[in-house]
Amino acid sequence: MRRPGFSRRSFATGAAVTALTPAALTAAAPQASAERSADRARVAQVHQITLYAEKFPDGRMGYGLEPGSPQIPGPLLEMYEGDSYEIELVNNMDVEVSLHVHGVDYTIDNDGTPMTNSTVAPGASRVYTWTSHAPGVRDDGTRIAGSAGYWHYHDHVVGTDHGTGGLQKGLYGGLVVRREGDPLPDKQFTIVFNDMTINNRAANNPYDFSAVLGERVEMIVITHGEFYHTFHVHGHRWADNRTGILADANDPSQIVDNKLCGPGDSFGFQVIAGENVGPGMWMYHCHVQSHADMGMVGHFTVTDAEGNVPATTGRASGATGHDHG
Amino acid sequence: MRRPGFSRRSFATGAAVTALTPAALTAAAPQASAERSADRARVAQVHQITLYAEKFPDGRMGYGLEPGSPQIPGPLLEMYEGDSYEIELVNNMDVEVSLHVHGVDYTIDNDGTPMTNSTVAPGASRVYTWTSHAPGVRDDGTRIAGSAGYWHYHDHVVGTDHGTGGLQKGLYGGLVVRREGDPLPDKQFTIVFNDMTINNRAANNPYDFSAVLGERVEMIVITHGEFYHTFHVHGHRWADNRTGILADANDPSQIVDNKLCGPGDSFGFQVIAGENVGPGMWMYHCHVQSHADMGMVGHFTVTDAEGNVPATTGRASGATGHDHG
Amino acid sequence: MRRPGFSRRSFATGAAVTALTPAALTAAAPQASAERSADRARVAQVHQITLYAEKFPDGRMGYGLEPGSPQIPGPLLEMYEGDSYEIELVNNMDVEVSLHVHGVDYTIDNDGTPMTNSTVAPGASRVYTWTSHAPGVRDDGTRIAGSAGYWHYHDHVVGTDHGTGGLQKGLYGGLVVRREGDPLPDKQFTIVFNDMTINNRAANNPYDFSAVLGERVEMIVITHGEFYHTFHVHGHRWADNRTGILADANDPSQIVDNKLCGPGDSFGFQVIAGENVGPGMWMYHCHVQSHADMGMVGHFTVTDAEGNVPATTGRASGATGHDHG
Repeated sequence: MRRPGFSRRSFATGAAVTALTPAALTAAAPQASAERSADRARVAQVHQITLYAEKFPDGRMGYGLEPGSPQIPGPLLEMYEGDSYEIELVNNMDVEVSLHVHGVDYTIDNDGTPMTNSTVAPGASRVYTWTSHAPGVRDDGTRIAGSAGYWHYHDHVVGTDHGTGGLQKGLYGGLVVRREGDPLPDKQFTIVFNDMTINNRAANNPYDFSAVLGERVEMIVITHGEFYHTFHVHGHRWADNRTGILADANDPSQIVDNKLCGPGDSFGFQVIAGENVGPGMWMYHCHVQSHADMGMVGHFTVTDAEGNVPATTGRASGATGHDHG
Repeated sequence: MRRPGFSRRSFATGAAVTALTPAALTAAAPQASAERSADRARVAQVHQITLYAEKFPDGRMGYGLEPGSPQIPGPLLEMYEGDSYEIELVNNMDVEVSLHVHGVDYTIDNDGTPMTNSTVAPGASRVYTWTSHAPGVRDDGTRIAGSAGYWHYHDHVVGTDHGTGGLQKGLYGGLVVRREGDPLPDKQFTIVFNDMTINNRAANNPYDFSAVLGERVEMIVITHGEFYHTFHVHGHRWADNRTGILADANDPSQIVDNKLCGPGDSFGFQVIAGENVGPGMWMYHCHVQSHADMGMVGHFTVTDAEGNVPATTGRASGATGHDHG
Repeated sequence: MRRPGFSRRSFATGAAVTALTPAALTAAAPQASAERSADRARVAQVHQITLYAEKFPDGRMGYGLEPGSPQIPGPLLEMYEGDSYEIELVNNMDVEVSLHVHGVDYTIDNDGTPMTNSTVAPGASRVYTWTSHAPGVRDDGTRIAGSAGYWHYHDHVVGTDHGTGGLQKGLYGGLVVRREGDPLPDKQFTIVFNDMTINNRAANNPYDFSAVLGERVEMIVITHGEFYHTFHVHGHRWADNRTGILADANDPSQIVDNKLCGPGDSFGFQVIAGENVGPGMWMYHCHVQSHADMGMVGHFTVTDAEGNVPATTGRASGATGHDHG
């Protein structure tokens, strides 16, 4: 039986990335036209990593890049359109586990579902292969959407055939597929509304994060479990489209600061920290009132260049004192 | 009183389509500019059909194209922008019934609601007229959206003034309005998330369907009842826009494989079966965990040209055997 | 302590609008390029108003433009991109209250949250400043979305730190930020799905409204509370984008007449009353069946030029009489 700390496979542990020649990717290439190819100097990459599915002492479960280091959410994986992932999943738990991914390409034997016999027994491991493709045009003239998007991966077998138990315990993570030319963030934060928690954290241990005024901050937002939620950030907003950034002057997308989401959904966006609003402790929360009241809340702190956050004294007049705050 | 098998109206039974001269449609034409008219050789059609509202022996209700053949979902109706439908609804049940449509044009006496006196008494029949229009531009320069879309129709009177009882029992169906030039599918499947069922089927009798690798498959997804759902398909994805297909290289729509939906919603899309992923039994399901666990699941089987589906043996190493699958 | 009818501040009461020179707005201007500036003759405005937070005799709460006149929803506020609002909030209630806004720009001390000490004690008042900006382009070439949108404001402190009690009782309102060139409506209606009510009204006192055939009608739709809803209008539909109107012939947005929404969401659109469908009492309602059945319903009555609504007699044949309607 496999144990934490021991890996029989030959892939480098961790997030090592190996660049192969483009020829090696022929099989994964989409049936797309050569559109965009002229400006593509980038060489497609095969990302080879190992993920370890492990239990925390308190019963939660997580995927990690090293034995003994499960994370919730699991590691944020990233690739460009055309890249692929070869992920060895090592099951260091005593129950069957799997890896099911949204958005990218994989053959049915990489589905991560019991029905396709693509799960991993306790102590075992297996490789899941994900590929991706750039936009293209079919012979009939219709467009092939590229793989770019804010996607995610999760278990699909713990507890039930749909991984309900694995999701409840933390077996999920984000996957960003970028298109060449997409702006790159300075900082990234993955926020998972999982049942009534954020990232399986207790309400008194909020997921807070910070950035410096002017930094480009990417938020990857995923929902799992039973409930619908509305993701709201104070003082920042984004376009409700593929990237969260308006594509051009004609992009008709709605600008939002509150987005309805349900289990299995994912979206992402980039904001410039404090743009037009300045530094501050900007709350983000589920806007369903009882969910916010029960603690689905965190803070996105934007500091000035010196690391300071402005004091937030109200300008109340005519009376003094606040019981609150 | 009307009985199954007997129709007093003069329209042809079934999905007969009669082509009228364009002049006959003048009244239904929108106040649109002649934009697009240059490439419109197509003659607008009036689709004249009869729908029979009937009970199943087990108490479910459905609309059918022939007496004694109710369907759940009701027949998938299709039209091009500019076409119209004249639907005689024959009520072969013992309760009042109606036909309310989303998306297309109709005068208030075709609303299908009790308040507008546009329902059909037991044993009676009446004609509902729906029209549609192509995109246009108003005199003030604002755009008139065309009628194209993935719409639906349903009862609006059985059980309550909102047809809650009729919807619960199966009185709903899909309506596709196409724009000239929209790609046509090889196969079509209507999937209705109705309360905790798919198409009012029992969990042990899933709605499965199949296509051959490379076929263009259209899915029409409708939601009814009380609950929100998230519609997820494995291995396939679509653009979250009017058609599900990116309109052009600048279309900023998010690509999704999981879409939040609530009662009264409808959307549709086309995928190329197995594109970039190959054949397989691809699961589709509601991604709300308890809904999936309770059976809101079906399979979209993609076969190769010979009708085969690949065996799905995992590549587990270090241990053998799966209790599952 | 502040009392109704008394205001110590120097701003004009009500919705007075003062035009300042553009120079006065320099501080609020976004870091945008001069794109669009060539065709901008409009002078940015600072809207200075007073809002009074007050209780109704029955315990509901509302914001009003005059003392003693609380409204639910609160006054519909409007601005163009580049404009700002300076709102003195006078608290004529016996509990702390605040003003939190979605979509536009404000510094953290205008957040309206207890944690930022930006609430208003009973009997006190304070000024909240909101700014806004036109679209632009950053130095790195990425687009800055303009502030235009169908937004809203609400209390964020009554009852809980998230204003759950204030929202339940009616402390909310709409905010429309327009882009220069956006079409202006003839009539506007704000519809708030707040828990199981529309605009906190009893089911037997529906929010009905009317327009004349051909009038341009704007609906601002906001959701608050605990539940998700699906907003449906009979006989009218809109584009699911920023304005509800297709931006151009290439706009790929889905056309909808039913839109899923959750707490904190807002959207808006304009329709031409009765376009392609004629006059009538057009129902609008939540399409979640039990919500409609329990009374989340109202009517959008479209009259002809003489104020008439057509009689809605069905064309039932083969039987007479309707128990309904």
